[in-house]
Amino acid sequence: MSPEERLQSVSPSGEIFALPLPEDYPGEFERLKQVVQAQRDLGREIVVVMGLGFVGAVMAGVVADAVDKSTGKSNKFVIGVQRPSVRSFWKIPLFNRGISPVEAEDPEVVPLIRRCVTEKKTLLATFTEDALSLADVVVVDVQCDYFKEDLGDVRTGHAEIAALEESLRIIGDRIQPECMVLIETTVPPGTTEYIAYPLVKKAFERRGFNSAEPLLAHSFERVMPGREYVASIRDFWRVCSGVNDTARQRVTRFLSDILNVEKFPLTVLDRPIESETCKIVENSFRATLLAFLDEWSIFAERNGVDLIKVIQAIKVRPTHSNMIFPGPGIGGYCLPKDGGLGVWAYRTLMGFEDDIFKLTPMAIDINDTRALHAAELVRDALRNMGKIVAASKIAVLGASYREDVGDTRYSGSEMLVRKLTEMGGEISVHDPYVQHWWEFEKQDTYPAPGNSWARFFRNQEKLTELRIQQNLGEALKGADAVVLAVRHQTYLALSPDDLLEKVGKPFAVVDCFGILDDSRICRYLSLGCEVKGLGRGHIKRLKDQLKNI
Amino acid sequence: MSPEERLQSVSPSGEIFALPLPEDYPGEFERLKQVVQAQRDLGREIVVVMGLGFVGAVMAGVVADAVDKSTGKSNKFVIGVQRPSVRSFWKIPLFNRGISPVEAEDPEVVPLIRRCVTEKKTLLATFTEDALSLADVVVVDVQCDYFKEDLGDVRTGHAEIAALEESLRIIGDRIQPECMVLIETTVPPGTTEYIAYPLVKKAFERRGFNSAEPLLAHSFERVMPGREYVASIRDFWRVCSGVNDTARQRVTRFLSDILNVEKFPLTVLDRPIESETCKIVENSFRATLLAFLDEWSIFAERNGVDLIKVIQAIKVRPTHSNMIFPGPGIGGYCLPKDGGLGVWAYRTLMGFEDDIFKLTPMAIDINDTRALHAAELVRDALRNMGKIVAASKIAVLGASYREDVGDTRYSGSEMLVRKLTEMGGEISVHDPYVQHWWEFEKQDTYPAPGNSWARFFRNQEKLTELRIQQNLGEALKGADAVVLAVRHQTYLALSPDDLLEKVGKPFAVVDCFGILDDSRICRYLSLGCEVKGLGRGHIKRLKDQLKNI
Repeated sequence: MSPEERLQSVSPSGEIFALPLPEDYPGEFERLKQVVQAQRDLGREIVVVMGLGFVGAVMAGVVADAVDKSTGKSNKFVIGVQRPSVRSFWKIPLFNRGISPVEAEDPEVVPLIRRCVTEKKTLLATFTEDALSLADVVVVDVQCDYFKEDLGDVRTGHAEIAALEESLRIIGDRIQPECMVLIETTVPPGTTEYIAYPLVKKAFERRGFNSAEPLLAHSFERVMPGREYVASIRDFWRVCSGVNDTARQRVTRFLSDILNVEKFPLTVLDRPIESETCKIVENSFRATLLAFLDEWSIFAERNGVDLIKVIQAIKVRPTHSNMIFPGPGIGGYCLPKDGGLGVWAYRTLMGFEDDIFKLTPMAIDINDTRALHAAELVRDALRNMGKIVAASKIAVLGASYREDVGDTRYSGSEMLVRKLTEMGGEISVHDPYVQHWWEFEKQDTYPAPGNSWARFFRNQEKLTELRIQQNLGEALKGADAVVLAVRHQTYLALSPDDLLEKVGKPFAVVDCFGILDDSRICRYLSLGCEVKGLGRGHIKRLKDQLKNI
Repeated sequence: MSPEERLQSVSPSGEIFALPLPEDYPGEFERLKQVVQAQRDLGREIVVVMGLGFVGAVMAGVVADAVDKSTGKSNKFVIGVQRPSVRSFWKIPLFNRGISPVEAEDPEVVPLIRRCVTEKKTLLATFTEDALSLADVVVVDVQCDYFKEDLGDVRTGHAEIAALEESLRIIGDRIQPECMVLIETTVPPGTTEYIAYPLVKKAFERRGFNSAEPLLAHSFERVMPGREYVASIRDFWRVCSGVNDTARQRVTRFLSDILNVEKFPLTVLDRPIESETCKIVENSFRATLLAFLDEWSIFAERNGVDLIKVIQAIKVRPTHSNMIFPGPGIGGYCLPKDGGLGVWAYRTLMGFEDDIFKLTPMAIDINDTRALHAAELVRDALRNMGKIVAASKIAVLGASYREDVGDTRYSGSEMLVRKLTEMGGEISVHDPYVQHWWEFEKQDTYPAPGNSWARFFRNQEKLTELRIQQNLGEALKGADAVVLAVRHQTYLALSPDDLLEKVGKPFAVVDCFGILDDSRICRYLSLGCEVKGLGRGHIKRLKDQLKNI
């Protein structure tokens, strides 16, 4: 095969890397063996991290950065393994130059990876899974997505566990029997014991390790995108468990080595299913808190109540301080799917035919469709100005799923854009934190392939040309409607007069996230704008008061 | 009418009071007028509190105890009004001796009432509603219950608003037009404007005050039974609103006079419906948090998970610290009903035909039936010992709805006792905080008449003889099953060996509230007891481990 015919992987900055050929593997493995031998001579434990995605890349850095708490010396050597696909291979050469493969608002990420790769030399990346045979510890950060068949019915979907199963098969085929395997992925409860254990145990038996008990452990991450990304791994409470006493002890020691367990004590549970369930309950709880306010948001809109002020009045109580207004939808990678993993596991892995789940799936269904109501408000606000969505230009301010981060996964804005596009609207989008909205630009490399909201809407073709505007004025110019979709710092400060000047004429404003205070709402109204907002039933009253002045 | 023929009201301690006759009213009103004139001469504002129930009695004390924040002198005089019914008249003469009509764990309640009545002389009680004509401020603490037609379907029920409407009619007929009326009752959102306003406005018109605008306000209480009862009124955040600017200003000043608003700032909302909605959202949120764990509790029981440990592992996160295990049911006066008031108002007061509420009613339905599953565990634990409920003696430890208080309203234990009785079990009950379980002893004087769970169960007749045991040994003697139903301090410390001695033979233990740690579970098992627990799926594993030793 000539170099030109080789498959290529292109980094976000446009650098091209040829994928390795079969003949490249033995050399790579030789290189690893030599590095590992030298590291073992330094007394370091060899840790292989499977998957250099959002979690794995930074986890690899945290492990490689850890030092022996008494001597202060590095005591782990980390090999990050990424399969050499067109979509992801570029991560490996970049990583080995000390460049983080993930974008993050946290200023700690870039120096963490650089420091470990180029200074401490405790971190490298490779494409060969043979690295597994050299590991004392394997950390599995392979994604387990949830595929939804229908919009607004999580029950008809299923866990996409094949990639994780494949990784576990490879692990079983390659690791030494005494290697501890830590599954860090959020998985359907039961996965470690019902799926991973039999796969690895059978692989051991095939390899002649008949009496070897796989040392499987589970400890989910609680990473939070944003400026505290690294701290959310290292300086945060962890829960872990193992399939047997040895695995439980090994994972406890490993996590105690790398995390700040002095300040954030580790919880060790008896069985992996308890740790797996913990994560699902935790995120389903939060999804439920958010979904709960959807119906009250509608109630507020229809009955003159400003739900934003109501929530502020309630949140002062320490027992209610985690009440959060749901905005135009509940995104992020975890909350839209984790409850689904639980419901699926109960039926599929545990084989129960009855349906015990009520709030968990209902919360996801409510959250998944909330953005459609935001689209209704845009429609109604335009109608009040004598327009329809189909003939209008709509500027959406904010593409990410939460404030002051650039993470667009399953964001309410994505669905809002899709729905308004289906209705024929012409969309422009601004977001100071998002350079590329991958969900529209490259659907084949979407973090969860095939899992975008795209397939639930018609008329989506033209969205492949959607590009994020970095210039707010450009995004706003001539808009018939402006949607305030995310509570980014810059949007909280926007002045109505300034916006009117940028737009060039009165427009419809739709506040999806309690961004406007009453004085700004009144200013928009007196400038001739139409204003609507999720959960903001008091706007009509403000309008009437203005008329009476 | 001879004295013997007069209706009588009997205090909890057995003292008998004859109800007043029509001819007693003018004299009582004359007395009040004189007292009020003297109080006005002292520069005090006259406050009438309607209803001396759980909230009104203590609220009356808090108002009467308030002093001018600059001079330190009492500036309110309070008249508590209680209608002279057989059920409640005894409160008035006791109150006027300085004796609190409500039992409370809070040591502040008794001296508060005594101090205001006998020392400060800023508080008295009366049976005549003519007192209203003397008031500068009326505080309405008349209950508004929610009646459920069906068990587990809150939607078919209705708000019992008649008593409140009647009180508002009386208020409209008697108050001076400049009197500010503060509704403190938790009401269906819209009540102040949709119900109270037209009632009082029309009464004013009948009385010739055609141009007078009723000064109606709403500010819900957030009282919490227990040792911080008074503080939960005085030293806690408040929300208020009024039907117009004057009412809003008046209620703001009044609450600022009597509450610790320096430390717990007041939230003033625009309209009463916002304040009313606030309370309903607040309590529905909490009901939903609790209901959420019901399905995970079942999941845990069936899949080897100890949900108690899972919750402990999650609660360390500040964003999840209000996660609470739901125990054998969700009682107390508010959580089982408040969401129902919201759903009812939307349909009835606001006239909407569509059904926007999902989580709010579902949470109540889940919470209302959770105790039935606790009964299933008792059944199953007995079955594992070769017994059935019908032939068994079952000791229930804890009658109140939460730990370390004596409040039994809608407690999970009540429903558990009713269900096990329906199944033929013989029940004994112990609770160190409850002397009388009124729900069983006097159904006609139940706090919410007709609203007890009784009507949903058959075979309840013999329960009128149920008496709370104060002696734990008596309650336990010969029991086939012991239900640990409430996390009272004394129950957390119970030793398995001690219990076995009191019971006299191995028994079934059902832990409804995460009361048993693993070492105690193991001890019960090794003593030959059968153990089950809500959400405690790991017990079978502990049993297997014991067998293998």
